[in-house]
Amino acid sequence: MKNFISVSDVSDINALVKKALEYKADPFKDKALGANKRIGLLFLNPSLRTRLSTQVAAQQLGMEAIVFNVDKEGWALEFEEGAIMNGTTVEHVKDAAPVLGKYFDILCIRTFPSLKNREEDYSEMYISQFIKYAGVPVISLESATLHPLQSLTDIITIKEYLLNSPLRAGGKPKIVLTWAPHIKPLPQCVSNSFAEWINAWGEADFVITHPEGYELAEKFTKGATITHDQDEALKDADFVYVKNWSAYNDYGKMHSSDTSWMLTNDKLQQTNNAKVMHCLPVRRNVELSDEILDGPNSLVTQEASNRVWAAQAVISTLLTSPKGGI
Amino acid sequence: MKNFISVSDVSDINALVKKALEYKADPFKDKALGANKRIGLLFLNPSLRTRLSTQVAAQQLGMEAIVFNVDKEGWALEFEEGAIMNGTTVEHVKDAAPVLGKYFDILCIRTFPSLKNREEDYSEMYISQFIKYAGVPVISLESATLHPLQSLTDIITIKEYLLNSPLRAGGKPKIVLTWAPHIKPLPQCVSNSFAEWINAWGEADFVITHPEGYELAEKFTKGATITHDQDEALKDADFVYVKNWSAYNDYGKMHSSDTSWMLTNDKLQQTNNAKVMHCLPVRRNVELSDEILDGPNSLVTQEASNRVWAAQAVISTLLTSPKGGI
Amino acid sequence: MKNFISVSDVSDINALVKKALEYKADPFKDKALGANKRIGLLFLNPSLRTRLSTQVAAQQLGMEAIVFNVDKEGWALEFEEGAIMNGTTVEHVKDAAPVLGKYFDILCIRTFPSLKNREEDYSEMYISQFIKYAGVPVISLESATLHPLQSLTDIITIKEYLLNSPLRAGGKPKIVLTWAPHIKPLPQCVSNSFAEWINAWGEADFVITHPEGYELAEKFTKGATITHDQDEALKDADFVYVKNWSAYNDYGKMHSSDTSWMLTNDKLQQTNNAKVMHCLPVRRNVELSDEILDGPNSLVTQEASNRVWAAQAVISTLLTSPKGGI
Repeated sequence: MKNFISVSDVSDINALVKKALEYKADPFKDKALGANKRIGLLFLNPSLRTRLSTQVAAQQLGMEAIVFNVDKEGWALEFEEGAIMNGTTVEHVKDAAPVLGKYFDILCIRTFPSLKNREEDYSEMYISQFIKYAGVPVISLESATLHPLQSLTDIITIKEYLLNSPLRAGGKPKIVLTWAPHIKPLPQCVSNSFAEWINAWGEADFVITHPEGYELAEKFTKGATITHDQDEALKDADFVYVKNWSAYNDYGKMHSSDTSWMLTNDKLQQTNNAKVMHCLPVRRNVELSDEILDGPNSLVTQEASNRVWAAQAVISTLLTSPKGGI
Repeated sequence: MKNFISVSDVSDINALVKKALEYKADPFKDKALGANKRIGLLFLNPSLRTRLSTQVAAQQLGMEAIVFNVDKEGWALEFEEGAIMNGTTVEHVKDAAPVLGKYFDILCIRTFPSLKNREEDYSEMYISQFIKYAGVPVISLESATLHPLQSLTDIITIKEYLLNSPLRAGGKPKIVLTWAPHIKPLPQCVSNSFAEWINAWGEADFVITHPEGYELAEKFTKGATITHDQDEALKDADFVYVKNWSAYNDYGKMHSSDTSWMLTNDKLQQTNNAKVMHCLPVRRNVELSDEILDGPNSLVTQEASNRVWAAQAVISTLLTSPKGGI
Repeated sequence: MKNFISVSDVSDINALVKKALEYKADPFKDKALGANKRIGLLFLNPSLRTRLSTQVAAQQLGMEAIVFNVDKEGWALEFEEGAIMNGTTVEHVKDAAPVLGKYFDILCIRTFPSLKNREEDYSEMYISQFIKYAGVPVISLESATLHPLQSLTDIITIKEYLLNSPLRAGGKPKIVLTWAPHIKPLPQCVSNSFAEWINAWGEADFVITHPEGYELAEKFTKGATITHDQDEALKDADFVYVKNWSAYNDYGKMHSSDTSWMLTNDKLQQTNNAKVMHCLPVRRNVELSDEILDGPNSLVTQEASNRVWAAQAVISTLLTSPKGGI
């Protein structure tokens, strides 16, 4: 593994999941691995779980973690090649990234999409430019189109649950990704990424359900069953992953605020007593009801706490990859 | 001790003071205690001394301290049960706190009052909700109505002074909490808390003086002598604690900006060569005169530096409490 | 060395450069030196390289580094003696600095000039007040008129280059500081400081070139050749240091935005294949052309990465100075 940007950086998902669960069982077992190494966490956008879980994971590996809020403590970066910088950007990624690569052994970066220009967002220029110029491994803390640490966490959480409570019927679990209402347009990152990872993992019957107009990019969903009928989708589901996203086709728009798509206990009746997941933050009683979040089917706290082990498995793998460039 | 929110969490104030002074004499004696443990410092409001002294204290105990500015690096939290979150709050404390409790062994939180709704502020909903959902010990870095780390520091500072310079007369010291002028309404936290701790400590003759209209909540002041006559209060005082606060009854209002209440050397003449204390930050020549702050009677720097030992004693106690939940 | 504010704090520049290059060869050789010591980094203004390189340097010496954004996480400080603080400032440096001096073994501070009042900026009141009241060694992370960590880095980078590629002709290198265009008025700090250090170092033929009206303060440039003819200045240069600055005489103003002063490969033809330096951040194609920054003559990444070794040499020297007050 040279970087951790998408599922295609990972050669063996199950091995990475196994590594994460081993860290959960023994958090400090590799504390010597990161001695005298440093990880830089660069934020162009806010973060709570991703920031803290990555700091915690790095510390458990004995690394020094340094957080830098580029947006607040630094200044606006330029990413366009050949730009004449007479506007609001103060420093080019071509100058900032190689210097940061000298200060740190691994760089992590969070950068959100604009939701205004699809071509630009989906080109992943920001994170690609960082990788191009940093000279050290780069970990995505969520980019314009993907959130791989979240998706790895999600598979860890599903696998962990199945290890403790195997399906009675045997066979593959049915996993449903369902669109949820929200009050403003959100990125497609978590949904794209979840679809990409579940498809690559290949150990589930995977169904995506959303109102018309919310089709995700086919390159991420290819292989999944897609339906606009939430009831049909939920039938016999073992896991329901709840998430809002804005439109990909009519880019960044909200077509529907159909509150009937919010998951409730009543809807859960149709499932196989499904466990409910969400990446957080969640707007209660808009995206997901109190009754589900506070009820026995919710995995959200366990899921969020597993963020630590996902980050720790990824950092550890980059530290030990012969081609990691470290 | 399960949490550290008010004096009622402490079974033996003098034992805690003694512990703090032992750390002052030997800061790193318990550096092994916090190995592989983490403390999270969450700020919903600005802080200088509280933030830095708590970080320093944690590091001296060998813990990793991670600071998170919820207000600036994160997003607005919701604290109301059952809220339909279609407004400005992005995440509920019921979802955030348990996750933070998985990342950290101890959580610290600072949250100021609105000064608009007394009932709400005095319900201490924010910090109570955190304690309810965090699942790990919580330390108040100042809440809506109290500032216990400051008050513990104040008693440490008084005790330290008396150990080095016992009162000639013997008996209890006379401690006066006096209101001071300010240019805008401040919380009652420091004053409430000082009153609560000095009363619980019980080793002082305690007088509170303020202009009419600035009565503090009786549940904190009960047991103290209260007077509107500052001169009478200052007479023979051994310690004068200076602080502005806004009205409790006509909640959050400033009734008086009577500059004659500012402590001066002239007023100090009436005291028993009293030592002067203030929690800082202080507006010079508004709350307190240069002549006092720069003169021989001021304890403010020593007091502020003692914040480290107060925090260290509290963290250490939580780390070793059998019921601390750690 | 008691503080690190200007070149006059340094008794032997070459010894400090040597120490820095030794750390570059073996970053962790003095990791025991800073054990149980703490360095506080206070920012009144934004920073990227200075902040991160100083954190990295401190960690490599085994110190705990704590960053505090005074401007964002704290509140406005007052620096005027005798101020009646009934305005926007909340705490006086006379109260904040001694407390910080109790929490930390070394304090670092960054504070920019206003560019409005020359007398005030050039009095360096902010950093002088900090030194006066802190009671521990103070390191400038850039002040109103100087940037000594940058200038030490610049000499380290020049020396390092010359060690690997000695001048064919022997003798002293010709070093040119050239003004560059910008879109807004910048401080004179980096240019003042570079001039001061190169003059004090004494191992170069030093030429400064700028358009009329951009004369720097003589106390820093005294000893250098000054010309308004950039072509003449660049002739046979071995190093070209590129930087924009606003006027010193007509204080803080931009007199010219003459884009012909931007360094290009064409202009480099006149030099002795000169190496090009810049402190970063640089506005590409305004201050410096892509062709130079991306070409073989640029030292900017190496220069910026050397910031770590400059900071490490300075911190290490302060930690071991018998009069360092630590």
